[in-house]
Amino acid sequence: MPRVSQDQLDARRQEILTAARACFARHGYEGATVRRLEEATGLSRGAIFHHFRDKDSLFLAVAEDDAAAMVETVARNGLVQVMRDLLARAVSPDTTGWLGSQLEVSRRLRTDPAFARRWAERSAAVAAATRERLARQREAGVLREDVPIDVLAQFLELAYDGLVLHLAMGQPAGDLGPVLDLVEEAVRRR
Amino acid sequence: MPRVSQDQLDARRQEILTAARACFARHGYEGATVRRLEEATGLSRGAIFHHFRDKDSLFLAVAEDDAAAMVETVARNGLVQVMRDLLARAVSPDTTGWLGSQLEVSRRLRTDPAFARRWAERSAAVAAATRERLARQREAGVLREDVPIDVLAQFLELAYDGLVLHLAMGQPAGDLGPVLDLVEEAVRRR
Repeated sequence: MPRVSQDQLDARRQEILTAARACFARHGYEGATVRRLEEATGLSRGAIFHHFRDKDSLFLAVAEDDAAAMVETVARNGLVQVMRDLLARAVSPDTTGWLGSQLEVSRRLRTDPAFARRWAERSAAVAAATRERLARQREAGVLREDVPIDVLAQFLELAYDGLVLHLAMGQPAGDLGPVLDLVEEAVRRR
Repeated sequence: MPRVSQDQLDARRQEILTAARACFARHGYEGATVRRLEEATGLSRGAIFHHFRDKDSLFLAVAEDDAAAMVETVARNGLVQVMRDLLARAVSPDTTGWLGSQLEVSRRLRTDPAFARRWAERSAAVAAATRERLARQREAGVLREDVPIDVLAQFLELAYDGLVLHLAMGQPAGDLGPVLDLVEEAVRRR
C-alpha cells in the first residue's frame, strides 16, 4: 500500500467537507443519507468515515469550518459585516440550503445534550470574538457607553439568528440592507 | 346516529389542536407520526382527519391559532410585547418544543411552494398588524421619524425571528430582557 502524505489526507478531508456541505444544503440534514453522501463525494462510506467518525461529526466539521471563517470576519470587521456577507450570498441556494440544514438540528440541540455540547464549542469562539471586538470598539470610543458589552453582543447575536432563520425559510433578502444599518446604529455612540 | 352540534364540533376541533400542539412540541414535526397524534388526542386517525385534511393541515391550523393570538397582541401592545411574552413562557418545554417543530419545516418552506404559500397566509396578518401599529405610533409621535415604517417593521421581525431561533435551540432565555429593551429603543423617537 502506498504511503499517503498528511497533505493528501488534508486535501481529501477538505474535498469531503465541500461535497458534504452541498449535499446537506440540497437534501437537508435528515435527507442527506449515507448513500447520498457517497454519491456527492464519489467515495465509499468506508472512505468517508475514515476521516469523520459519523454523519454528526461530518456535519459538525462543516459547521466548524463556518465558525472558523466567521471568527476571522468578526475579529476584523464585526458581526454586522458577517450579516452583510450572508445577505450578499443569500441569492445562492447553497447558502440558504446549508442554513436550512442547520435549523433542522434545532430539535436535537434541545433534546440531545451531547450533540448540544459539541455544537456549543463551535459557537463559543464566535461569541468570544464578538465580545473582544466590541471591547476594542468601546476603547476606540465608537460604541455607545450606556449598555454593557454583553447586552450589545447578545443584541447582535439575536439579529444574526433572525437573519439565519429569515434566509433559511427562503424569505426575500433584497431589502434587508437598511435593516442591518439600523442594527449597526443601535450599538454605536450617537 | 345522534346529531352533533356546531358547538360540539368546534370543541372537538379545539381539543385536537391542543393535543396536537403538545405532540408536535414533544416529538417535532417529523416525529409526530399519525400513531402518536392518535395517542395524544385519544382519537382514531379517521376522527382526526375528519376535522383536518392531513398532518400538514393540522400543523398549519395550530400555527394559525398562534398567528391569531399574535395579531391581537401586536395590535394592542406591539411586536416587542409578543417577544416579552415569549420570553416569559420560554421556561416551558412546550413553548420551545413548539417553536422547534416550526423550525423543522424551514426546509419545506424553501422547497415546497404550496406549503410556503399556506404558511405565508398565516404570517401576512401578523405583518399587517405590525405595520398598522407602527403607523399609529408614528402619528402619536413616539416613533423615530427618520426611518420608513417598513424598515422598522422588518427590524422588529428580524429580532422576533432571532428570538424564535434562540429559544427553539434551547439557549438560555434569562438575560434577554435588556436586549429587548435595546430593540424597543431602536425604533423610538430619541
